[in-house]
Amino acid sequence: MEQPSQPKYHQKVPEPTLRRLPWYLSNVKLLKQRGERYVSSTQISKETNIDASQIAKDLSYVNISGRTRVGYEVDALIDVLEGFLGFTDIHKAFLFGVGSLGGALLQDSGLTHFGLEIVAAFDVNPDLVGKELNGIPIYHSDDFVKMMQTYDVQIGVLTVPIEIAQSITDKMIEGGIKAIWNFTPFRIRVPEYIVVQNTSLYAHLAVMFNRLNFNGYK
Amino acid sequence: MEQPSQPKYHQKVPEPTLRRLPWYLSNVKLLKQRGERYVSSTQISKETNIDASQIAKDLSYVNISGRTRVGYEVDALIDVLEGFLGFTDIHKAFLFGVGSLGGALLQDSGLTHFGLEIVAAFDVNPDLVGKELNGIPIYHSDDFVKMMQTYDVQIGVLTVPIEIAQSITDKMIEGGIKAIWNFTPFRIRVPEYIVVQNTSLYAHLAVMFNRLNFNGYK
Repeated sequence: MEQPSQPKYHQKVPEPTLRRLPWYLSNVKLLKQRGERYVSSTQISKETNIDASQIAKDLSYVNISGRTRVGYEVDALIDVLEGFLGFTDIHKAFLFGVGSLGGALLQDSGLTHFGLEIVAAFDVNPDLVGKELNGIPIYHSDDFVKMMQTYDVQIGVLTVPIEIAQSITDKMIEGGIKAIWNFTPFRIRVPEYIVVQNTSLYAHLAVMFNRLNFNGYK
Repeated sequence: MEQPSQPKYHQKVPEPTLRRLPWYLSNVKLLKQRGERYVSSTQISKETNIDASQIAKDLSYVNISGRTRVGYEVDALIDVLEGFLGFTDIHKAFLFGVGSLGGALLQDSGLTHFGLEIVAAFDVNPDLVGKELNGIPIYHSDDFVKMMQTYDVQIGVLTVPIEIAQSITDKMIEGGIKAIWNFTPFRIRVPEYIVVQNTSLYAHLAVMFNRLNFNGYK
């Protein structure tokens, strides 16, 4: 059960698996704090309400093997999961659009603990250009391509108004950005080789409001 | 095609539909800015890469009808969608845990335009309790139940460290919170009647890093 019979760590990991792995990681971190040295998928299952066989399957993508009856070693599992998820490397990113949400993300230094470092931001607002926020310099959007030569950046965080979401996306890709973390409620179009993750806070709000309403609350 | 033959607006709306509707909304807003007065699902389809029949199906949950050959009236569609998604009502919320991410969310006044108003925050840090951030008061966590009587709040935003994510969740529910917007990487357990939306920035980062890596970038 604990021993993945067919390690899959050279395969493309399914997105649902990648989304579940951080849950296991935070659970195992908690178990470590409680003094546990070993953890089984059954234990993680109890804590997370996810099927133990699903957990074993998900962990088969990660290069770690458990021992029968004992399970996975807690320290090793944390190290391997953090590495596998990319949280131990630093991935540099540019942020586009220092509005309310963009500014908030610049303030969130916690992202660094999960491998993301926003090294610079871009905007056209003359009140912002040339300033710093949380130690992060804000440049004029026109300087983006030049800055791509200065910084080693592959990720762009998109927090611009919807009117320019697509045109800024196109410019980011032209300039060499390989992955876009899209916080706008706009569905951007990109070539196939560009990685996109949509984090629509507004979509989550819509679901929450609707369900509250459905449950009889307003 | 445009005319939903069987309006479904008394049914429970599927979550994928609720997640797509904000995309249509931002697209239609753009079309309005470009001076369009009518929009068809075919047009929205071209802009969003979502199947036109899927769009018509999604819109059948919303109380609006299009006209053959003309489509939906842009102004009406925006109003109806915003209302349907709950963005025009104000939903008051408490935020729990004024760390890096929690503090950042308090700074993001943009959430108000989508119907969420964080009216107070809770923490135990003596440097924060009694202060304000972006005009939002920070109270001691012990005062939460008392504050539930002062404010009319149903939503709790969870941005605490994972070690206390479950215990704070339990307290929120005990105190009368009906919906939890969970930003922690921890999978919280709640009774069935409690609404939960998980926004795991870390899971999105994990997917992005993995895909970049798979595409040959680091």
